[in-house]
Amino acid sequence: MPTLDHFWSVIPAGGAGTRLWPLSRVASPKFLHDLTGSGRSLLQDTVDRLAPLAGDRVLVVTGEAHRAAVREQLPGLGEDAVLAEPSPRDSMAAIGLAAAVVERRDPDAVVGSFAADHVIADTGAFEAAVGRAVAAAYDGWLVTLGITPTFASTGFGYIRLGDDLAGHPGVHRVAEFVEKPGPDVAAGYLADGGFRWNAGMFVARPGVLLDLLAEQDPEFAATLRAIAADPGRLAELWQRLPRIAVDHAVAEPAAAGGRVAVVPADLGWEDIGDFDSLATLLGEESDLTVLGDAGLVRGQVASGLVVPASGRVVVVVGLDDVVVVDTPDALLVTSRAHAQRVKDVVADLRRRGRDGLV
Amino acid sequence: MPTLDHFWSVIPAGGAGTRLWPLSRVASPKFLHDLTGSGRSLLQDTVDRLAPLAGDRVLVVTGEAHRAAVREQLPGLGEDAVLAEPSPRDSMAAIGLAAAVVERRDPDAVVGSFAADHVIADTGAFEAAVGRAVAAAYDGWLVTLGITPTFASTGFGYIRLGDDLAGHPGVHRVAEFVEKPGPDVAAGYLADGGFRWNAGMFVARPGVLLDLLAEQDPEFAATLRAIAADPGRLAELWQRLPRIAVDHAVAEPAAAGGRVAVVPADLGWEDIGDFDSLATLLGEESDLTVLGDAGLVRGQVASGLVVPASGRVVVVVGLDDVVVVDTPDALLVTSRAHAQRVKDVVADLRRRGRDGLV
Repeated sequence: MPTLDHFWSVIPAGGAGTRLWPLSRVASPKFLHDLTGSGRSLLQDTVDRLAPLAGDRVLVVTGEAHRAAVREQLPGLGEDAVLAEPSPRDSMAAIGLAAAVVERRDPDAVVGSFAADHVIADTGAFEAAVGRAVAAAYDGWLVTLGITPTFASTGFGYIRLGDDLAGHPGVHRVAEFVEKPGPDVAAGYLADGGFRWNAGMFVARPGVLLDLLAEQDPEFAATLRAIAADPGRLAELWQRLPRIAVDHAVAEPAAAGGRVAVVPADLGWEDIGDFDSLATLLGEESDLTVLGDAGLVRGQVASGLVVPASGRVVVVVGLDDVVVVDTPDALLVTSRAHAQRVKDVVADLRRRGRDGLV
Repeated sequence: MPTLDHFWSVIPAGGAGTRLWPLSRVASPKFLHDLTGSGRSLLQDTVDRLAPLAGDRVLVVTGEAHRAAVREQLPGLGEDAVLAEPSPRDSMAAIGLAAAVVERRDPDAVVGSFAADHVIADTGAFEAAVGRAVAAAYDGWLVTLGITPTFASTGFGYIRLGDDLAGHPGVHRVAEFVEKPGPDVAAGYLADGGFRWNAGMFVARPGVLLDLLAEQDPEFAATLRAIAADPGRLAELWQRLPRIAVDHAVAEPAAAGGRVAVVPADLGWEDIGDFDSLATLLGEESDLTVLGDAGLVRGQVASGLVVPASGRVVVVVGLDDVVVVDTPDALLVTSRAHAQRVKDVVADLRRRGRDGLV
C-alpha cells in the first residue's frame, strides 16, 4: 500500500501519566515506555503505525525536556521532524503549531493528529479509517475518528453520529460532541448505538483547522502562523498562547456549525490511563501478568500486574488483583481497584518536596 | 541485682526463618536482624536480657557459617563464648554440647538455654522466672519455663502443670508435655488454665541434663562429653550425633518419670514466626506499620507491614493487611493471612536453583 499523498501525521507527545507512577515520571513520561511488551515504546509504536500512511511526513510535538529522548527513540526522523514546545500549552497550541508549520511546507497537505500514548490493536482498521478521514478532509471537512465503545465508559467524551456524509461512504456528520457522561448516561449511549468515543484524533487541511480556530480566536491562529513563519520567535510568542484543548477550541464550535465529520472505527483502541487498564490490556484475569522480564516474577495464589523494572526478583503471594511496580528508586504496591489513586501519591510526593521521585 | 552465681546462659542461634524471607536468609538468619525496631538484633537483645543474670557466663551456639557475624554483633564476648557447629544437628546436640563444655568449666554450674530469636517484653518477669528456675535446677530438677498462653495457638506445644513443687514457690511439677494441638484442643487448653506454652527454655545442671540424655541414649551423651574434653575432635564426632530436639530427647521422657519442673511465666513472649506475627508485635492495626526508616514509606488507605530495607521509597495504596518486604535483591508482596506460605516461596526458589536468593 502506497502512502497517502500529502498526508502528514502529527504526533503530540505530552501528558504526565501520573497514574502510571513510578513507571511514568515527569522526566520519562508514559509515551517513552513500552507498556505493551512489544519491545517498542508507545511513541515508537505510534510512529510505526503511521509510517505506511505518511511515510516520512511526520511531526512529533513534545516538550523541550523530552526532545532528546524523542530523537533518541526515533533516530530515523529528520532534525525538523520534532517540534519542541517551550512549555505545556495544551493540545490546541501543540496541534495548531504543527498545522501552521505543515501549511507552509506543503500547501496541499492534510494533517492527522494522533496522540503518542494510545494503543491501537487493529492496524488495518486504523489505516482504513484514516484513509477515509483524509479523503473527507481533502473536501474541506474537519474529520475525527469515532471509536466504537466497548463498555459504558465515564472517562471519555462521546461523539453523536449524524447523517451519512454524501460522497464519503462510512463517514458521518458529527451531530455533536458530548462531555464525559455519568454512569447512567454512558450506559444509555452504549445501548443507543449512535455514539462513539472521542479519542482526540483529528484530520484536516491545516488551513481548515487554523481558519476554524481563527473564527473563535483570531489572535491565536495568527500567532501560530507567525511562529511557523519565523521559528526564531517561538520562545517569545509561545507564552501568549491560550491553554485550551483542540476539542473546545475548534471541534465543538465547528460541530455546532455542521462542519465536522466522523469516521466510526473499531480499532482495538486503548488509552492506558492507569495500571488497571494496563492490566486489562496485557492480561489474562486468572494469574499474574508481567510487563517486563517474567523470569524475575514468582506468584503463588496471586493475580494482577507486576512490572519488574529494577532487575530484582519480585515474589507475590496470596493477593488478588494486586499491582506491583518495581523501579530502581521507588516501589508501588496497590490494587487494580485503587489504581486511579496513584495520581494522589504523586501529588503528595510533590507537596513533600520529593520532586526527584515524580 | 547481682548475677546468679554459677548460672550460665546458653543461646542456641540457629533456625533458617524461611517464613521471614527475603529479610531472613540462609546467610543472614532471623536472629541476626533487628525485628523489633530496637536498634539491636534479636541475638543482641537476647544477650542483653541475660547479662544481668549470667554476667559474662554466656555461650552462643551457632552454625560455622554464622560464627563471624555473631562475633561481630557481640564484640564484648570472649573467643571461647561462641561454639560453632560444623553442621545443623537440631537442639539436643547444640544445647548438649554447651552443657558438656560448661560441665568442665564450672562443676557447680546451672545452664539455662534461651533461643536467640525470641522476643520477651517483660524483662522483670523473665528475670524472676529464671531465678526460680535456677533455684529448682540446683536441687537437681530439669526446669522449663511455661509461657502463659494469650490465644489458642496451634503452633506451639503445651505443658500441662502438675502439683506445686515443694520448697519452690511458683514452681510446678510438669504433668506432661503435649504436642501441638488442633484448634479445638487448643481452645480447651486455653479455657482450662492449667496449660502453658512450651517455648523450649530449659534450665538444669549440665550433669543432670546429660545424665537424663544418657538414660535415653548413652552414646549421645558420651560423645558430647568427649567433644568437650577434646574440642579438636569436634569435626570428627559431631557428624555422629543424632538430629533430635531436646524436647523429645530429654524433656518428654524425663517428664514421664516425674523429673521435670516448670515455672509458669507471663513474659510478653513472642516467637516471630512470620510476617503476620511480626506485624502483630510491632503494630497498630489501623495503619501501615514500618520496620525500618518510616520516612521511606507512604501509605494511602492502606494497613499492614512494610519493611523498607533497600533504601527505596515504598508507596502502598488501597490494600489492607498487606506485607511488603523490600530488600536490595528481592521483593516480597503478600498479605498477613498468607504470611505462612512464604516458606513455600523459599522452597520453590531453591528448587529452581536460585540459591543465591534464599
